[in-house]
Amino acid sequence: MSHRVGFALFGLGNMGLAHMKNIMLSPRATVNWIIRNKLEDAEKFVKDYNLSAKCTTPDKLEAVYNDPNVKAVLICSPTTTHEAIIKDSLNANKAVFCEKPITDNIKTTEDCYNVAASKNKPLFNALHRRFDPDFYQVYSQIQEKKLGNLRLIKTTSRDLEAPPISYIKTSAGILNDSTIHDLDLSLWLSGSIPETVYVQGNAFDPEIGKCNDMDQVIVTIKYKNGVIACLENGRVSGYGYDQRLEALFDSGMLKVENPNTSLLTTCTGNTTLTGPIHPHFTTRYTQAYNNELEHFLDIMEGKSEMRVTNEDTIKVMKLVKACLKSVQTQGPVGFDD
Amino acid sequence: MSHRVGFALFGLGNMGLAHMKNIMLSPRATVNWIIRNKLEDAEKFVKDYNLSAKCTTPDKLEAVYNDPNVKAVLICSPTTTHEAIIKDSLNANKAVFCEKPITDNIKTTEDCYNVAASKNKPLFNALHRRFDPDFYQVYSQIQEKKLGNLRLIKTTSRDLEAPPISYIKTSAGILNDSTIHDLDLSLWLSGSIPETVYVQGNAFDPEIGKCNDMDQVIVTIKYKNGVIACLENGRVSGYGYDQRLEALFDSGMLKVENPNTSLLTTCTGNTTLTGPIHPHFTTRYTQAYNNELEHFLDIMEGKSEMRVTNEDTIKVMKLVKACLKSVQTQGPVGFDD
Amino acid sequence: MSHRVGFALFGLGNMGLAHMKNIMLSPRATVNWIIRNKLEDAEKFVKDYNLSAKCTTPDKLEAVYNDPNVKAVLICSPTTTHEAIIKDSLNANKAVFCEKPITDNIKTTEDCYNVAASKNKPLFNALHRRFDPDFYQVYSQIQEKKLGNLRLIKTTSRDLEAPPISYIKTSAGILNDSTIHDLDLSLWLSGSIPETVYVQGNAFDPEIGKCNDMDQVIVTIKYKNGVIACLENGRVSGYGYDQRLEALFDSGMLKVENPNTSLLTTCTGNTTLTGPIHPHFTTRYTQAYNNELEHFLDIMEGKSEMRVTNEDTIKVMKLVKACLKSVQTQGPVGFDD
Amino acid sequence: MSHRVGFALFGLGNMGLAHMKNIMLSPRATVNWIIRNKLEDAEKFVKDYNLSAKCTTPDKLEAVYNDPNVKAVLICSPTTTHEAIIKDSLNANKAVFCEKPITDNIKTTEDCYNVAASKNKPLFNALHRRFDPDFYQVYSQIQEKKLGNLRLIKTTSRDLEAPPISYIKTSAGILNDSTIHDLDLSLWLSGSIPETVYVQGNAFDPEIGKCNDMDQVIVTIKYKNGVIACLENGRVSGYGYDQRLEALFDSGMLKVENPNTSLLTTCTGNTTLTGPIHPHFTTRYTQAYNNELEHFLDIMEGKSEMRVTNEDTIKVMKLVKACLKSVQTQGPVGFDD
Repeated sequence: MSHRVGFALFGLGNMGLAHMKNIMLSPRATVNWIIRNKLEDAEKFVKDYNLSAKCTTPDKLEAVYNDPNVKAVLICSPTTTHEAIIKDSLNANKAVFCEKPITDNIKTTEDCYNVAASKNKPLFNALHRRFDPDFYQVYSQIQEKKLGNLRLIKTTSRDLEAPPISYIKTSAGILNDSTIHDLDLSLWLSGSIPETVYVQGNAFDPEIGKCNDMDQVIVTIKYKNGVIACLENGRVSGYGYDQRLEALFDSGMLKVENPNTSLLTTCTGNTTLTGPIHPHFTTRYTQAYNNELEHFLDIMEGKSEMRVTNEDTIKVMKLVKACLKSVQTQGPVGFDD
Repeated sequence: MSHRVGFALFGLGNMGLAHMKNIMLSPRATVNWIIRNKLEDAEKFVKDYNLSAKCTTPDKLEAVYNDPNVKAVLICSPTTTHEAIIKDSLNANKAVFCEKPITDNIKTTEDCYNVAASKNKPLFNALHRRFDPDFYQVYSQIQEKKLGNLRLIKTTSRDLEAPPISYIKTSAGILNDSTIHDLDLSLWLSGSIPETVYVQGNAFDPEIGKCNDMDQVIVTIKYKNGVIACLENGRVSGYGYDQRLEALFDSGMLKVENPNTSLLTTCTGNTTLTGPIHPHFTTRYTQAYNNELEHFLDIMEGKSEMRVTNEDTIKVMKLVKACLKSVQTQGPVGFDD
Repeated sequence: MSHRVGFALFGLGNMGLAHMKNIMLSPRATVNWIIRNKLEDAEKFVKDYNLSAKCTTPDKLEAVYNDPNVKAVLICSPTTTHEAIIKDSLNANKAVFCEKPITDNIKTTEDCYNVAASKNKPLFNALHRRFDPDFYQVYSQIQEKKLGNLRLIKTTSRDLEAPPISYIKTSAGILNDSTIHDLDLSLWLSGSIPETVYVQGNAFDPEIGKCNDMDQVIVTIKYKNGVIACLENGRVSGYGYDQRLEALFDSGMLKVENPNTSLLTTCTGNTTLTGPIHPHFTTRYTQAYNNELEHFLDIMEGKSEMRVTNEDTIKVMKLVKACLKSVQTQGPVGFDD
Repeated sequence: MSHRVGFALFGLGNMGLAHMKNIMLSPRATVNWIIRNKLEDAEKFVKDYNLSAKCTTPDKLEAVYNDPNVKAVLICSPTTTHEAIIKDSLNANKAVFCEKPITDNIKTTEDCYNVAASKNKPLFNALHRRFDPDFYQVYSQIQEKKLGNLRLIKTTSRDLEAPPISYIKTSAGILNDSTIHDLDLSLWLSGSIPETVYVQGNAFDPEIGKCNDMDQVIVTIKYKNGVIACLENGRVSGYGYDQRLEALFDSGMLKVENPNTSLLTTCTGNTTLTGPIHPHFTTRYTQAYNNELEHFLDIMEGKSEMRVTNEDTIKVMKLVKACLKSVQTQGPVGFDD
């Protein structure tokens, strides 16, 4: 009936809601199903916004996969659920838009991509940094070489505050959990393959140290084309969600600073006060999430090549492994080690 | 059926669309009717977004006014249509949210407010500057007197480029059309009544001069409480929609700068380049439009006092008249002249 | 003996010291005499810096005027002393560099310029705004018309805090004392003659009001070429010596902001803190004072035309008079009224 | 005769001139001798500024060392000359202010400090970063722990453009030549001893690579107190002398940005343009050089403890050695290795 792409949405947490609202404002897409463990939350949402979407739970998916209006699946449920949903969706001939990571290991991730290839359906790993408009500007200018060749990539990525220790305990660690975005950004921008990787870090919070995790890391990568990347990622800034990027070229620099959340400046006595930066990724990367949706719809319509390929996904997972090995050996490691 | 406030939306231009999208993302409101001359545009919109709203044209409103689900009317149609829609809506016991101005003259505006009073329904004049979160911060700090008493209000308000001459020819002039927002902002912030008003201006574009209009004005107001306002409004900046505010106090200054639209800085050779400011009010004041909706819903629920009273509306219309008289007499005029 | 220009320096206050130090670091100039009422201060200075300058008091100037090494006189003594020093110096065939104003009235100022003309010696009125490198950039770009024609000049000029009431009592008022710099800046940049001038102001400090003076003024000038100037000058900012300039053109804007005095930013919790602006003109306009010296030496060497002509000096004095008349009549006044 | 400290100044290049002018404007110091190979340059300078200093060449120093007015020696001559001048000066009972480095190896540097100790005279290694007022603010706040404990130090240090290859050929390499300042800054701020040091770098300019040098390095240091330092130093920025510092704490960040050299902003079309940063250290660190002089005079007067001790000097030299070893071994090295 409709020219809009029908989605089944798995999960309605932070990211599920973000994507849901983007679809609600898009004339190109609609949500036909919301799948949530807490069915009543999904039903309340549908009622609150007067939507036509149906709701179900993860154990009753037959109607979803059989629904011919569902052309695509958008996965925002926990990582452990990804593999099954991806495979079932692809086997039901749905395109898949999946929040990072595809799965938590390289083997099963490759399996998923193999299924996607066999079904000739897109499997999209939503690594959001590549969809931020300013980071994309940097990427474009690297290709254009207006400032000459790229020499150096520097990223700063700090959360406002550490997640609860309960989260840290079950998480795959800061490198898998968080630094992976910075690693992916540097892979994308460098346009090359890492030669050596070195991680230095610390657990300033002793509770995090007890979990065998760190809350502050510096990753230094030398790429095969000579580009050096220096990535800083931390769990605690104390002042906001700090996301910055610098790219140094032969003849100049591109810099992406934090957006302002307030336009107010107070000047009094000896001080000038301005507002805080964003507290959280959900408000910082809103435009990126919207661009992800548009990109995925373009792919479905054959208008665009996938910006995050299966090779990209596997590469960043291998790079995280190399980082973990560097932490273990306390020295630089090669990428194919 | 629903706890959401049902709206009938008149007009689907820039402002109509902006409010429509805010309602689509609000769990507190829904649009039951869209009224548009070009019925097919409204119908296409409803179809594109899979909405349940019905569509009609301005000549067939009976069903709208008789619809018991319609609790409020949101008017984004041309100024000449306002008076009739407002009165008919109020008489049908609908609350009214109206884009500035209520009507184009004081007499009929007072009539509208009288009907609203007699029906005991809110009539809301959406003067958006009062709903910008940063301007509201300035307002709040004026009340709190942390920096002492207010002394000076300075505003800068420049469009990127002049509207077409065809628009200028039929417009009520820059003061009625545009400066009214700055005048309202200064009335609101000053918390006082103007004593004298003086306008200096020019038509740098001779075509605009031929229309007996100006493209650049400076309005200086002395308020009865001693506060001085200096308001600059222009049709042409050449670089964007420049909206700034300064408030000087006994012991400091508050300043609202333009938001950034790009986070990218390019450093090369002798120059540092950053992005442009917003080109247009629709993207600059998005948060204000959303706050207007929330405020209006709060009023309907009895949670808030109207931030723009009928006195406020009449006062700013009288202030525009005083400005016009100053242009004519080329001298300062009193407010009650 | 020396190729350096020998100066006699009158006064060793803020401005005297500023010029003294510029001369000490210039290979083009030297100070042969320092004239000060408090002779011991001058003698201490000479000793502290191991200088060869001689010291004397204002009542013993014969040796100064007869000293053939003294080619120029630099006047930083009180305004009341200017006329006599200027005339005596010119009559002794010295070039004259005089801190603003030449004298406190138009008649005697014209007399001084007449003497200068008859002796064919430069008489330089050190209106420092014209020598600030950034303001000069604006001036240059106005001439070059890269952004089209000039439309609007806006200045902000605020002292950190009001001078003592004792000073206000004997001062010639804020317009003569302080706004004159902004008026001169606008005359220089506009390249035109004022058509009408309107002043709005207030005395927020009642003590200043009792002195029949104001502590906050807004001057609006319409120039004959259509350019509008809006000049804000205040005695009290509460946060520093705030000096800003905007020039709006047909297709863009030039803006001069305040320099930073600290490079430190503190981000913590909800706030971002940066340092204060300059507290005082002596540190804000250091480069301008140095440029004045270089300009004056260029004039003496015939390398440059005088940037502040006698016409400029008389024009700004007349403009102050027009402003005072506007205050009195509470309306706009013509420039030649 | 004078209460001012008499100096003998060796060298009149960039740094010699900078210190010379600071002494000329200081009531606490004077220059009695200038020592320069090109005697005529020194003599011209003395004549141009009407100074009483005597001039001589490096081979005729007897009169300098025997001059009882010379209390201190300021060394701005090439590194190879330092050891002899330092020892001879100390043996002549002069205090010594020496531009970095004391000498080019640890052994002779220790010798120099031993002579200073035996003569009980100050030997000051002018590591200028410690005297920049903003970096000093960061140091002070680290001591005060207002933002909690220090976690991370990040520096950016880039020259506008590489020195000529002829210079690179004879230089001791980027680490000894330039990065040493960043290493010293991190030692000073960390308040600790390095545990491991890792260097990653590249020679983007193949000519520099042929000299067995690099033009871009990243140094990662883990300090014994847990603090991590990440120092970036490059020979080529393409846009100016970029000097930035970040210090991350338990609950916030301090950031030192580049000073502005121009206050002018141009807004036109899609762009906002601001001025360049400083091109060179001589203009960037002017205040630091002046503070060095004041600090040295304070030490001579017993008013202050030496901010750069002999231990500091030896420590940073050892840290450079560790960095060089890391480059050689391509892995992290311990500090005492």
